[in-house]
Amino acid sequence: MRNLKLVLAYEGTRYSGWQVQPDRETIQGVLEEQLARMLGERVRLAGAGRTDAGVHARGQVASFVTASRIPPEGLRRGLNDRLPRDIRAIEASEAAPSFHARADARAKEYRYHMTPAPVLSPFDAAFTTQIRGPLDLDAMRRAARRFLGRHDFTSFCSTGCRVVRRERIVSISEVQARNDRIEYRVRADGFLQHMVRTLVGTLILVGRGRMAPEDVDAVLRARDRRAAGPCAPPQGLVLERVFYEEPR
Amino acid sequence: MRNLKLVLAYEGTRYSGWQVQPDRETIQGVLEEQLARMLGERVRLAGAGRTDAGVHARGQVASFVTASRIPPEGLRRGLNDRLPRDIRAIEASEAAPSFHARADARAKEYRYHMTPAPVLSPFDAAFTTQIRGPLDLDAMRRAARRFLGRHDFTSFCSTGCRVVRRERIVSISEVQARNDRIEYRVRADGFLQHMVRTLVGTLILVGRGRMAPEDVDAVLRARDRRAAGPCAPPQGLVLERVFYEEPR
Repeated sequence: MRNLKLVLAYEGTRYSGWQVQPDRETIQGVLEEQLARMLGERVRLAGAGRTDAGVHARGQVASFVTASRIPPEGLRRGLNDRLPRDIRAIEASEAAPSFHARADARAKEYRYHMTPAPVLSPFDAAFTTQIRGPLDLDAMRRAARRFLGRHDFTSFCSTGCRVVRRERIVSISEVQARNDRIEYRVRADGFLQHMVRTLVGTLILVGRGRMAPEDVDAVLRARDRRAAGPCAPPQGLVLERVFYEEPR
Repeated sequence: MRNLKLVLAYEGTRYSGWQVQPDRETIQGVLEEQLARMLGERVRLAGAGRTDAGVHARGQVASFVTASRIPPEGLRRGLNDRLPRDIRAIEASEAAPSFHARADARAKEYRYHMTPAPVLSPFDAAFTTQIRGPLDLDAMRRAARRFLGRHDFTSFCSTGCRVVRRERIVSISEVQARNDRIEYRVRADGFLQHMVRTLVGTLILVGRGRMAPEDVDAVLRARDRRAAGPCAPPQGLVLERVFYEEPR
């Protein structure tokens, strides 16, 4: 048996997220179906990030075990020939037998794209969340820095989340802006369900002056979902990259 | 009666082009339907460019006559509230009673996006045509320059085209490249049906070495559609801008 690693990009707009669900079209489901047709055997993909419905990826990573002898590059090409154009295999490679895309991930990086522009271009609509402005970018930048370091992120995690350990170490948390485009970039050793979108929803409250940047500390300490801002819409979010070595 | 001018952006992917057709979803059709609901009267839009199925626009212009007294800015906002997110009114303004978006256009500019990258990112798939490379960019640039000036473009016009005068004056015709992204920018006082896509299809033949840049002159002189290259796919094409004054 071999263990293969895929790097994947997708536009999540028309999918019910990464994870297989009955009677729903999902990224994992489409990939497993096409892999089964190519390889003549059912495979089970382990994805590094279980992206929500409508969330995109530029660098999702998935691994699977197969008896097939297909060379990785042939697998990648054949898969792209079969996949719809909104899902693409960017890389395929042999992995160590013990490699598991989710269990072995050391860090992940997401970006969230938003704009206070009164009109959202149809060219950006699938990848950008339109928010009512004006926004105080400086306050948002200061609030974002307060997420850095090791914190219990219970306040930023969906109430349905069953994970017990809610401490995460955030190594990058920054707001960048160019013209009307605002981008939030965040990297951590792991993320809880809805965490990035709730960080963003909280930053938007700060940007609108409804919460002070220093209030973020109290929100973190509260360990109560009601203390944080709303969960921002999925279409602005992109899983950019998964790290398997300690990022420098 | 008032005459109103709209500047429109759209992603053409899921539409059968600009122009109203029975039993087809078209950009003009969707706009006229929503305008009729807002204004309480049927209106007829005159569009500057009749973009084909799958072609996009960043700066299409359309005009229409109405008895409504709605302020242009209220019209623009109300329209955007009703339109699907892949069509947007960028500007709305009062126009002179004699203004006609198509008849008065002095020039139009299109861009065509293509890439020889082996994998097309899902983020670019709706707006970029993937072509097998490698491509000789320098040869393409030299060929593009030969389209400049006044020529009869019969060779670059669909055989079904019923327009009699096929002379057009091309004022910009240039190939730009950055990494794997190749862009063809063309501006002219008018375009024949499929003209931009056939210019691109011919440039691709040149890029592949199947036609020499200087052969373009003979193709123009032939006034025969069979002399030019194939019509390139629609999804790379964007109507960028319509000029109503002589562009400088």
